[in-house]
Amino acid sequence: MDIINNLNWRYATKKFDTTRKVSSTDLEILKEAVRLSASSFGLQPYKVINVESKEVREKLRAASYGQPQVTEASNLFVFCAYLDLTSEHIDNYIKLIAETRNIDPQELKGFSDSMKNTFSNNTSEQNHVWAAHQPYIALGNLLNTCAMMNIDACPMGGIDPDKYDEILGLSKQGLRAEMIATIGYRSEEDVTGHWAKVRKPVSELFETI
Amino acid sequence: MDIINNLNWRYATKKFDTTRKVSSTDLEILKEAVRLSASSFGLQPYKVINVESKEVREKLRAASYGQPQVTEASNLFVFCAYLDLTSEHIDNYIKLIAETRNIDPQELKGFSDSMKNTFSNNTSEQNHVWAAHQPYIALGNLLNTCAMMNIDACPMGGIDPDKYDEILGLSKQGLRAEMIATIGYRSEEDVTGHWAKVRKPVSELFETI
Repeated sequence: MDIINNLNWRYATKKFDTTRKVSSTDLEILKEAVRLSASSFGLQPYKVINVESKEVREKLRAASYGQPQVTEASNLFVFCAYLDLTSEHIDNYIKLIAETRNIDPQELKGFSDSMKNTFSNNTSEQNHVWAAHQPYIALGNLLNTCAMMNIDACPMGGIDPDKYDEILGLSKQGLRAEMIATIGYRSEEDVTGHWAKVRKPVSELFETI
Repeated sequence: MDIINNLNWRYATKKFDTTRKVSSTDLEILKEAVRLSASSFGLQPYKVINVESKEVREKLRAASYGQPQVTEASNLFVFCAYLDLTSEHIDNYIKLIAETRNIDPQELKGFSDSMKNTFSNNTSEQNHVWAAHQPYIALGNLLNTCAMMNIDACPMGGIDPDKYDEILGLSKQGLRAEMIATIGYRSEEDVTGHWAKVRKPVSELFETI
């Protein structure tokens, strides 16, 4: 089964081949896969910063406990979730649905009201916790898509969100960095690439009732 | 591009064909895809309840605002995150690494200590928030894998975790239900399957710097 072979092939790449770049065609496919990811209500409450600037990546590496993949991978995606869910987010989303499906926004009033109710009854912190789950779905989708294309990736949670904010100006956009994905091609020198994959057995991870 | 075509093909299925079951071979592939998902530190701080029991699924439907997919889909996975991360989780993980890679657990002491430090410096609530991100990566991986296999799925966050706990006895295992995935085959009668997919344009979701 190709899917499982590809998922076994992937691993959290520690050392990338600095001479290899992901092609712009492949990069567009990865971005499209992220874009097509599911999210709660379909709201996509996040933004992805695609950091091409070498200078910025140097700064982000320092804000990521010096992890080398941040500068050595071909590409770096910073997944940022919205700090709160406001009426404006919902109004924009309703507008997007109405335009995409060519319907009257008034027909969506019930859906709009129910979302507004949900989020206005929560604290900002609760809305942020909710929002922060959603880019992880996109991350899972991205990692899977990379594997299917035999592109390497390393997702990393070990970042300093405050420093990321200083460098990328996130909070003024209402965003917070949640985690990053470094993307590229493994170096043959990465010894960790040859280590056996460690996963709980199905019998432990799953319980059937 | 097949991957993108498949991701466009998928949608949050509202009405499943109740006559069609996912084969046991395919179900094992889906479980394996979940199992192979990445997680922070590799800790896989979650468990998936695969609910086969019709009776339990009826109860869970009532605890999911009556959403019909809970009983009508071929399969139901309940993703549950651990409420805290304890030394025991880490010791078990270190044991698993040592066994899988045939190395002395003592060689992993530095890694073990750094994880224990991280989690013991957090509150339980912080550890739970961290743990709860991880099954979303697996969910993204599952949804992507389903799409590649032309199996339908609907991820659902609209569940009552307290009622899920009562029905499934989760908190006594140190778990909390985060979200569910219903899996099967779309019904031709599902009008929502013909609606245009609504997603932010790449230019809005991504920012390149």
